[in-house]
Amino acid sequence: MIDLVKNLAIVNRRTKASVIRELLKLTNKPEIISLAGGLPDPKTFPSEILADIASEVLRKQSHVALQYGPTEGLPEFKEQVIRLLREDEGIVVKQENILVTTASQQALDIVGRTFIDPSDPILVELPSYIGALQAFNAYGCKMVGVQGDDDGLRTDELEKRLLQLRKEEEHYKFIYIVPDFQNPNGVTLTEERRRQMVKLADEYSVMIIEDSPYRSVRFEGKAPHMLYKLGKHGNVVSLLTFSKVLAPSLRLGCIVGHEDVIKRMSILKQPLDLCTSSLSQMLACEFLKHGGYKEHIARLCKLYKTKKDAMLSALERHMPEGEGITWTKPEGGLFLWLRLPEPMNTDELFSEAVKENVAYVVGSAFHCDGSGHNTMRLNFSYPSEEQIDEGIRRLARMVKTHLPRRCARVSHAA
Amino acid sequence: MIDLVKNLAIVNRRTKASVIRELLKLTNKPEIISLAGGLPDPKTFPSEILADIASEVLRKQSHVALQYGPTEGLPEFKEQVIRLLREDEGIVVKQENILVTTASQQALDIVGRTFIDPSDPILVELPSYIGALQAFNAYGCKMVGVQGDDDGLRTDELEKRLLQLRKEEEHYKFIYIVPDFQNPNGVTLTEERRRQMVKLADEYSVMIIEDSPYRSVRFEGKAPHMLYKLGKHGNVVSLLTFSKVLAPSLRLGCIVGHEDVIKRMSILKQPLDLCTSSLSQMLACEFLKHGGYKEHIARLCKLYKTKKDAMLSALERHMPEGEGITWTKPEGGLFLWLRLPEPMNTDELFSEAVKENVAYVVGSAFHCDGSGHNTMRLNFSYPSEEQIDEGIRRLARMVKTHLPRRCARVSHAA
Repeated sequence: MIDLVKNLAIVNRRTKASVIRELLKLTNKPEIISLAGGLPDPKTFPSEILADIASEVLRKQSHVALQYGPTEGLPEFKEQVIRLLREDEGIVVKQENILVTTASQQALDIVGRTFIDPSDPILVELPSYIGALQAFNAYGCKMVGVQGDDDGLRTDELEKRLLQLRKEEEHYKFIYIVPDFQNPNGVTLTEERRRQMVKLADEYSVMIIEDSPYRSVRFEGKAPHMLYKLGKHGNVVSLLTFSKVLAPSLRLGCIVGHEDVIKRMSILKQPLDLCTSSLSQMLACEFLKHGGYKEHIARLCKLYKTKKDAMLSALERHMPEGEGITWTKPEGGLFLWLRLPEPMNTDELFSEAVKENVAYVVGSAFHCDGSGHNTMRLNFSYPSEEQIDEGIRRLARMVKTHLPRRCARVSHAA
Repeated sequence: MIDLVKNLAIVNRRTKASVIRELLKLTNKPEIISLAGGLPDPKTFPSEILADIASEVLRKQSHVALQYGPTEGLPEFKEQVIRLLREDEGIVVKQENILVTTASQQALDIVGRTFIDPSDPILVELPSYIGALQAFNAYGCKMVGVQGDDDGLRTDELEKRLLQLRKEEEHYKFIYIVPDFQNPNGVTLTEERRRQMVKLADEYSVMIIEDSPYRSVRFEGKAPHMLYKLGKHGNVVSLLTFSKVLAPSLRLGCIVGHEDVIKRMSILKQPLDLCTSSLSQMLACEFLKHGGYKEHIARLCKLYKTKKDAMLSALERHMPEGEGITWTKPEGGLFLWLRLPEPMNTDELFSEAVKENVAYVVGSAFHCDGSGHNTMRLNFSYPSEEQIDEGIRRLARMVKTHLPRRCARVSHAA
């Protein structure tokens, strides 16, 4: 066989298998309750409606639905995205502002490809979506993390970073952020910080990449404006997807941005996969037009709210109190975030958890600087309410066994 | 708006919009007969059967069909690919030898990503598939062209190239080849040259990338063995797709190779799009199992043979004889290749052709060294028989008007 070492490109050294996917393989045993995944609940899939639409579309419009389509996306599907943005977000865009992508993971790859040369500095959140870190990392960027709290990215920290690099006569290619119900921590960036963020982006001439896969999955509270709405024309690029609100297997998302950026990105998409599936676009298009999209989202949010509440109440019931253990209380999305006392290490505890037949994702996987060892991501969208309760119970038992004595005392004293 | 020039990655300078896609935009007028595209005839789409399958799969197996799937692909779909390779090609592979891709354009991107660092030399055919040139070019490789003839790639030329670089103590990362009914020229590599090619690959320790999207679309003649079958274990990576034999919009293909290579490629695919659509995989899987795949292919080949024959007879009828004009006679695929006398330039003649209301793809677009100015690609799969005849008539009229006098005379004298 060919000498692989001699033949492989450098990117192979930069790209590791996703920690999540590898962990998931370990946790495939039926006795394990997995709070590790990020899958939508299949109960939310509008299968019957999609079956009717697919049958109709394939019988009557197969010459479009089964054919190659334009790289930019089918105009009729983009029209529906334009309508949703106008109605739901008060955002006015044209066909030229939209590139249809093979879900938002491809959008992340295209963002990386468009802007990143090796060693280019970019800004990401601490923690941040692991799939984005992977996608950008493949292009060899230098990732710099910005700390957040329960109100989202800390804009004071962001400004420090921007100022510092300006002093070095360098600049960040972009800031990547998941502002709504962030993956992994479930936190939403406040309206005030959003306004500060777009102001800083303008002042420091840095692009914002707004990745918002869960924005429609809001159970409660009031939505702040999209960064795209608040930002200056051309300073914000937004990534949307139908994976969480319709079905992941459609592999359907889009990038919204300035037409000059979208034009560039369309050219770069051509060699990636020529075009996104016309069938997926037509299924989604018909669903958005006639499938009862709003009612569907309402049902989905109701289900996930019940599950989120189940997880919060299980945490209150089972987790040791006053031990320096905290968790976020998301108003939407699929995840929440558990913080253990600093000396605890969720990487090391993972095998203990698996022994207790429960799984989570280690927090360090989401930190570009390797920090976050005392944190973990918990998913509430996929497991049932019963599994959530039992899963948290098992997790709490494991945590109690390993709580550092000294730390617990300090915490009590504080 | 952000200063794009300051922010764009180098790849933007390397990636041009596809000549074909840009030309197609010019030729969208209804009065133009386009022999330029590369689309399958929608009449070949098994729409009714796929509509039934989609309806069934979405109603009964939506928890898989609409969900995320493994990056490597669904095992049941891969099982069908394994069966086809065994039955049709006498090739025995396992699950670990297959990575399901978002059609073969993504496979080309993954090949580029896996092996190419900037300035790495690779070998391609003269001419070669433009989508592959684009995909590899994005990774900044140095492409070296190898001349072919009507028996496919010239292996004596290939050996010269390999020897030369060995003398310079360098090596090619891979040889990229479309051995069956090549896009653009419709030529098939002979069995003898295939055997020479795998021997050279072994001798010079160079990987062969065998891209074979049209292999099942054979109208006549006997198929030589796949390079994968002839090559040593691990020296050949083959790309397959269902775009031409089922439907492009499924965006479904796969890479077959040594398990070490496939493992690498799976890791690199994760940040590209996480996984290929489970729905597409299940539709294809069911079609391959119960949809009458063999009969479908037979019908498709019959239709395309009629169209290919129509184009050949139109060329014989309309093109000026004995003027140094030649064309290939493909035994399958979607394209044939027209060569005009050397001084003629199909780039320059393109606007003339459009005036005559006929379109082709300029041959130079398929040549990594910018040669091939006297050639053009003609597609026979999409236009009707009537359009083929009329299109060739218009093309011949334009060609006659611009035939170089001196050249014509030289040609007569020869």
